[in-house]
Amino acid sequence: MVKIYADHASASPVRKEVIGAMIPYFGEYFGNPSNVYDMGSEIKQAIEDQRAKVASLIGANPEEIIFTSSGAEANNLAIKGVAFAKQKKGKHIIVSSIEHHSVLNSARFLERLDYEVTFLPVDKNGLVEPDRLSNAIRPETILVSIMHANNEIGTIEPLSELSGICKDKGIIFHTDAVASVGNISVDVNKLNVDLLSLSGISLGAPKGTGALYFNKKVRLMPLIHGGIQENGRRGGTENVPGIIGLGKAAELTQQDLPGETDHVCKLRALLVTGIRERVEEVKLTGHPEIRLPGHASFCIKGIEGEALIFMLAQTGIYANTGSACASKALKTSPVLGAIGISPDLAQGSIVFTLNYSNRVEEIEYILEKFPQAVAKLRSFSPIWGRKTPVYNETACKP
Amino acid sequence: MVKIYADHASASPVRKEVIGAMIPYFGEYFGNPSNVYDMGSEIKQAIEDQRAKVASLIGANPEEIIFTSSGAEANNLAIKGVAFAKQKKGKHIIVSSIEHHSVLNSARFLERLDYEVTFLPVDKNGLVEPDRLSNAIRPETILVSIMHANNEIGTIEPLSELSGICKDKGIIFHTDAVASVGNISVDVNKLNVDLLSLSGISLGAPKGTGALYFNKKVRLMPLIHGGIQENGRRGGTENVPGIIGLGKAAELTQQDLPGETDHVCKLRALLVTGIRERVEEVKLTGHPEIRLPGHASFCIKGIEGEALIFMLAQTGIYANTGSACASKALKTSPVLGAIGISPDLAQGSIVFTLNYSNRVEEIEYILEKFPQAVAKLRSFSPIWGRKTPVYNETACKP
Repeated sequence: MVKIYADHASASPVRKEVIGAMIPYFGEYFGNPSNVYDMGSEIKQAIEDQRAKVASLIGANPEEIIFTSSGAEANNLAIKGVAFAKQKKGKHIIVSSIEHHSVLNSARFLERLDYEVTFLPVDKNGLVEPDRLSNAIRPETILVSIMHANNEIGTIEPLSELSGICKDKGIIFHTDAVASVGNISVDVNKLNVDLLSLSGISLGAPKGTGALYFNKKVRLMPLIHGGIQENGRRGGTENVPGIIGLGKAAELTQQDLPGETDHVCKLRALLVTGIRERVEEVKLTGHPEIRLPGHASFCIKGIEGEALIFMLAQTGIYANTGSACASKALKTSPVLGAIGISPDLAQGSIVFTLNYSNRVEEIEYILEKFPQAVAKLRSFSPIWGRKTPVYNETACKP
Repeated sequence: MVKIYADHASASPVRKEVIGAMIPYFGEYFGNPSNVYDMGSEIKQAIEDQRAKVASLIGANPEEIIFTSSGAEANNLAIKGVAFAKQKKGKHIIVSSIEHHSVLNSARFLERLDYEVTFLPVDKNGLVEPDRLSNAIRPETILVSIMHANNEIGTIEPLSELSGICKDKGIIFHTDAVASVGNISVDVNKLNVDLLSLSGISLGAPKGTGALYFNKKVRLMPLIHGGIQENGRRGGTENVPGIIGLGKAAELTQQDLPGETDHVCKLRALLVTGIRERVEEVKLTGHPEIRLPGHASFCIKGIEGEALIFMLAQTGIYANTGSACASKALKTSPVLGAIGISPDLAQGSIVFTLNYSNRVEEIEYILEKFPQAVAKLRSFSPIWGRKTPVYNETACKP
């Protein structure tokens, strides 16, 4: 049976070399890295080797990397860690309105502890405007968190410009780079960020892995208090096999990514052009050019995204709707709302995320099956076919 | 070369069946459980199957289990989760003074946020006295956290008695059962606890796994905010292979543990008796009877525990000193201080933790090498051989 996986932002198979690297650390090298004897110290060294690989992928120093259990944990550690460490300096935080739930809900948690949070609006392409950020900054602002790329609409934010504004004012800048690291080249120095979250899932590492980059000048309260692991910044016995996997995946990503981007961009262009040619009243969401290479997201008038996902899965095509985490909440995507998509149209959200493993023939297959699925769903729709369009036609074909 | 591993409280090899169960979930079944299509929903179901196994091991209902990345994370979630959810009711928390760093440091973090914490003393065997707990409770007490068994001295606390005191007063009771689950039978109903932390490491599951049991009546603020995973109680894509491993390990533990305990108790008795016969001026730490089956901990006069660990490792014997997490901090163990061991004697801490895989011949080998190592170290010691003992002789041979 055909199986075309185009939902790499949700999950990817762990790379074979990564699995191979991890396996000895389940049984053979099982010691606790905190132990002083050889079985512990060897493993401690193996962890430090991986820290160097993860650091290298993003242009950081090894001692600036904290291993976490996910990108979400890294985001929580960054937001709450700075908020609790700097509460005497101020209690105002700025995040964009299209951040991942792990950022938004961390910020909302802080609101319950009397922090103030500004949720910055974005433009119709999902970009945070530097002027808006400047205007939102107050004397008591301690932290700004703006994602590098959005997982749902693919838009890449003008990070170095945004972080520059904060640097000038001594405000800590965090970016959730879960959607970008592994898909585009990321360098913490070029981006000029103080904190950066990444996830192993985007690199072909296993679930349950992630990391936070932190500039050594940044004071962080731990999220998981405990012993001396991660230099006292994250308690709990290290997930050794996971860290080995993350390091190997970072090494492979650094080596392979430059050669993969063109291929992925071409697939994306083929998919976007093809869908817009074959399906009427479809809107590409997010920025038309400044977006992740393999990211193609649309809103399709007159259908319901989840139904489309199911129908595509029946033909062996796997894609997503809304954000991966929200998809079971059955709500309209807040990200699509933030870029001005009407609730009706936002219902028809579909997101394809491609990576190096996808092939041209797979895109051709999608382009064959996708219009059929849309047509079928529209034939059931009570809205589709009405004379009055539910949204502005010109806005939908940018 | 001989290799006798007697440090199972620090780490254990992952069971072969557990590795076998996990591997397909790295590559073959790699979908994101939040996704609505079959590749996601199948994995969601696999997670729920493991939740039932973990629940069954401790007599809980599946919906009362939250998967975490470690026992330390479970402890942090319990302590901070209750503290933040109940802050309007009160801000006083009680923990024992021999808790794991993840509990103690979570409590100290809350002190910085204007919570009050009582650190309950323990008796010379490490037991929390029920009267002391009763007396420490105030109208504004919201949470009591007392570990089930201590990882460093092996003592098992009288939990049902302690939790009963709290239940009568409507105070939430948490226990860190990281050291007990996997080593003795644990039932949340018999223990009468509201929250219980466990770690995969103690079950033969991989590092990076753990769980928190929570009584459904307990309101918890998430530690890791994010999407709808774990019913909104822990954000971040689930560590699917880790959860599969934890479930398999829980199933095997439930099946095998009853048949293993006698064997482990015999090994422990052989070791304790043998060491006390062969080495003079050695103190068994913790309760002489009410202790974990495989746990044998001593303080040896006139030597330094870390030096002993190194010397034993050279003969192929792996043991521990102090708590696993503190061992690199080069401080005297706070647990030993809490049970009244002098700093001098506490320096000579050594901890053996045995499990079902250890054999009688291994204990015999330890009993041959251990006295030699102690004698050699004592021959270097500036303290050993003085006429005045540094501690009370009668107190040391209970």
